[in-house]
Amino acid sequence: MTLKELKNFQVPGFLAGGMACGLKKQGIKDLSLIVSEVPATAAGVFTQNQMVSPTVPISRKALKSSRTVRAIIANSGNANAFTGAQGMKDCEAVVAATAKALDISAKEVLTASTGVISVPLAVKKIEAGIPKLVNQLLPKGWTQAAEGIMTTDLVSKTCAVQYGDIIVGGISKGSGMIQPNMATMLAFLASNIRIDKRTLQRALKEAVDPTFNCITVDGETSTNDMVLLLANGQADNPPVKAGSKAYKDFVTALTHVCKVLAFKIVEDGEGATKFVTFKVNGARTKNQAEQIGKRLANSLLVKTALFGEDPNWGRIIAAVGSAGVPIKPNKLEVALNGTTLVKNGEHVKGVSASSLQKKMKSKEIDIAIGLHLGKASAETYTCDLSYDYVRINAEYTT
Amino acid sequence: MTLKELKNFQVPGFLAGGMACGLKKQGIKDLSLIVSEVPATAAGVFTQNQMVSPTVPISRKALKSSRTVRAIIANSGNANAFTGAQGMKDCEAVVAATAKALDISAKEVLTASTGVISVPLAVKKIEAGIPKLVNQLLPKGWTQAAEGIMTTDLVSKTCAVQYGDIIVGGISKGSGMIQPNMATMLAFLASNIRIDKRTLQRALKEAVDPTFNCITVDGETSTNDMVLLLANGQADNPPVKAGSKAYKDFVTALTHVCKVLAFKIVEDGEGATKFVTFKVNGARTKNQAEQIGKRLANSLLVKTALFGEDPNWGRIIAAVGSAGVPIKPNKLEVALNGTTLVKNGEHVKGVSASSLQKKMKSKEIDIAIGLHLGKASAETYTCDLSYDYVRINAEYTT
Repeated sequence: MTLKELKNFQVPGFLAGGMACGLKKQGIKDLSLIVSEVPATAAGVFTQNQMVSPTVPISRKALKSSRTVRAIIANSGNANAFTGAQGMKDCEAVVAATAKALDISAKEVLTASTGVISVPLAVKKIEAGIPKLVNQLLPKGWTQAAEGIMTTDLVSKTCAVQYGDIIVGGISKGSGMIQPNMATMLAFLASNIRIDKRTLQRALKEAVDPTFNCITVDGETSTNDMVLLLANGQADNPPVKAGSKAYKDFVTALTHVCKVLAFKIVEDGEGATKFVTFKVNGARTKNQAEQIGKRLANSLLVKTALFGEDPNWGRIIAAVGSAGVPIKPNKLEVALNGTTLVKNGEHVKGVSASSLQKKMKSKEIDIAIGLHLGKASAETYTCDLSYDYVRINAEYTT
Repeated sequence: MTLKELKNFQVPGFLAGGMACGLKKQGIKDLSLIVSEVPATAAGVFTQNQMVSPTVPISRKALKSSRTVRAIIANSGNANAFTGAQGMKDCEAVVAATAKALDISAKEVLTASTGVISVPLAVKKIEAGIPKLVNQLLPKGWTQAAEGIMTTDLVSKTCAVQYGDIIVGGISKGSGMIQPNMATMLAFLASNIRIDKRTLQRALKEAVDPTFNCITVDGETSTNDMVLLLANGQADNPPVKAGSKAYKDFVTALTHVCKVLAFKIVEDGEGATKFVTFKVNGARTKNQAEQIGKRLANSLLVKTALFGEDPNWGRIIAAVGSAGVPIKPNKLEVALNGTTLVKNGEHVKGVSASSLQKKMKSKEIDIAIGLHLGKASAETYTCDLSYDYVRINAEYTT
C-alpha cells in the first residue's frame, strides 16, 4: 500500500469553508463549516477534562443518537466554556442555525468551539454568518476551514493522503493548552471511504492514540477539545471489516493524517523553537514508557534547557527518576540525536560538551531513553519552553 | 504556648558557619558547616527522586546506623549527582575530612550538596576548606551557613523561634526544582531540645508535611534534597513523649520554622513576582484536595495568568477539571483574595472585571476553591511563572 500526500486537496462529496463572522477583530476568520453532501458515518474522541464546553456533550449526544452526520460547525475566538445555562442554549442555537441553513436535522450537526473561556458567545453574529458561509463552501475549501478555527496558531494546519480510490483529509488547530493522552485540540477529518460507524470509531481511536494523544505543549487539558471524523462512502468500496487489510490500510492512512496534523500542532506550539521527540525504550509496559515520556515532555527544566540549547542530561535523568516509574539507575541509557551520552547509568567518556552543544542547535531534537527493563516503548512529541510561551500566556486571555 | 521569633539567633550548643572554598567563582560562599558541641539526636527526610546524589544514601545510612550525630557539612555550586562511582568516593572523602577536622566519627556526619548536576566534585577544594571553616564557626554563624548553600537563591533563608527554654532554628535554600510532597530543597534545623531519635523523626515528618511538602515552584524534584534536624538536649528538658503537650509544643515550633523557611523558598522562586496560596476546601479526602492544589500550582496557564495579573478564572476551573479528581462542576466555588467569583458552578454576577484586575496587582494572591463534596482541605503554596524563570533556566546549567 502506498500513501500519496495531496496538496490543495478535496475529499469527494465534501465541501468546506471558513469566514469572518465578527467574533474576532479585523475580519479575521472565526467560523468554519464542513459539510458532507450525503449522510456520513461519524466518529469522535473528546477531552477528558471534567469542565467542558456544551459543544462536548452536544456533539457526543449527536454522535451517539444519530446514525449519520452531515456537518461540523466550529467557531474560534470564543470557547463558549463555563458560560452556564446560556452557553448550552447558545450552542444549541448554533446547531439549529446550521441545520436550518443546510436543510438537515439538528441531530446531524456536530459542533466545536475554541478561544476564550467564560465569555458569553455572540451567538447572533454566528447565526447571521452561517447562511453566508453555506454559500461560500467549496470542495477545496479546507484551508479556509483550517483558518477559521485558529486561535494563537501561527499557521493553518491541513493534511490529506490518497491510496487507491480512498482519500483521507483533515484540518487541525492547537498551539497551547495541549496535553498528551487526551484529544486536546480540534481536528476534523473526512474520508470518502464507506465504513460503518462502529468500525470508524475503532479506526479513529487507533489513529489518535499514537498521534494526537502523544503530543504535549504545556501539559494543559482544554475544556473543548475533540477530534471528529466523517466518512461519506462516496468511494463505494466493499464493506470494511475491523482487522481486515482494507481496515488496516485505512488506519494507516488515517494515522498518517493524524500524525501530520498533530506534529503541526507541536511545531506551532506557543513560543516553540524546537520539535522534540522523546523515545522511551526498554520499559516494562507501554504505560510506564508513556509516563516517563510525558514527564520528560512536561518538565519545565528540560523544556527550558532545550530552549537554551543546553545539552543538560542531568535534568533529563532527574526527570526520568521522578516520573513515578520504578527504574534501575545503573541500567539507564540516554542518547541525544543518535549520540549515546549515558550508558549503564554513567556518563560516556569521550563525548565532548562542544559536540553535544552543536547537536542542540538543531531544530529537531531526538532524545532516546533506554531503561533496559523490558520490551515496551513509547514516543512523546513536544516543543521547548521559551520566553514567548510566557508572553503569549501572560498577555493573552484564553 | 507562645512562640517568639528570634533575629540573629543562636541555638545553645550549636556552632555554624559558611565560607568560599572555590567551587563558585569570585569568592562566593559555597561551603557550610553546622556542628553540635555534644552528640545530638537527628532526623531527616529525603527526596523521592530515584536518581540521587550519593549525599542522599550516605546521609540516610548515617542517620540509620548512628545513635547520634555531630555535624552537617554541605556545599553549593555542585550537586555531585550522577557522577558515578567517583561521586560516591568524593562524597565519602568530604565526610571523612569533616570527621577528621572535628575529631569525630564519620558516622556522626551528615552531608548535602546542591548545584550543577553531573560535573565531578572538586573535592580537594572542599578538603582544603573544611579545617579553615571549622576555625570560623560561631554560635551566631547561621546566616553565613545559609549563604553557603545558596544557588539561584537571591536571599539567604533563616528562621528561629523560642518557647520557654527551647529554641528551634534553621536555614534553607531553594529557588527552582521545587516540587510538592517531597523534601525538594535543603533545610538544616537545630534545637536544644532533649528528645529521642524516633520521636524526633516523627516530629520532623509532622512539621514537613504541611510546609515543605506543600510548596512548589516548577513541579520538579531534585536529586539531592533533604531536610535534616539535630537536637542536642542542651535544654535539659524532661523526656518528650510522642503525643504529649511537650511534643505538641515542639511540633508547633518546628512547623512554624519549617513554614517560614518553606515560604521563603517560594518567595524566592526563580523569577517569582507573586506568592500564591491555593486553598482547596470541601474535598472528599485530603489527598484529593492536595492533588487539585498541586495541579493548580503546577499549571503553566494558571502560573502565566498570575504573572500577567489576569484574573483568568477560566484557566483555574479548567485546571481543577483536569486534576484527575472526580468533582461536581455545578457545585464548584472559586474565590480570589476573598471575593467569590464562581458559585454553584456559575460566574457570580456583579463582580466586575476591573475590581478583579485590581486584586491581581497584589503581591500575595489567595485562591480558594470550594468543591462541596466533603470536609477535607489542603493548602498549596507557589509562585507565578515569569520570563525570568525561563531566562534563569535556559541560561543557567543546573
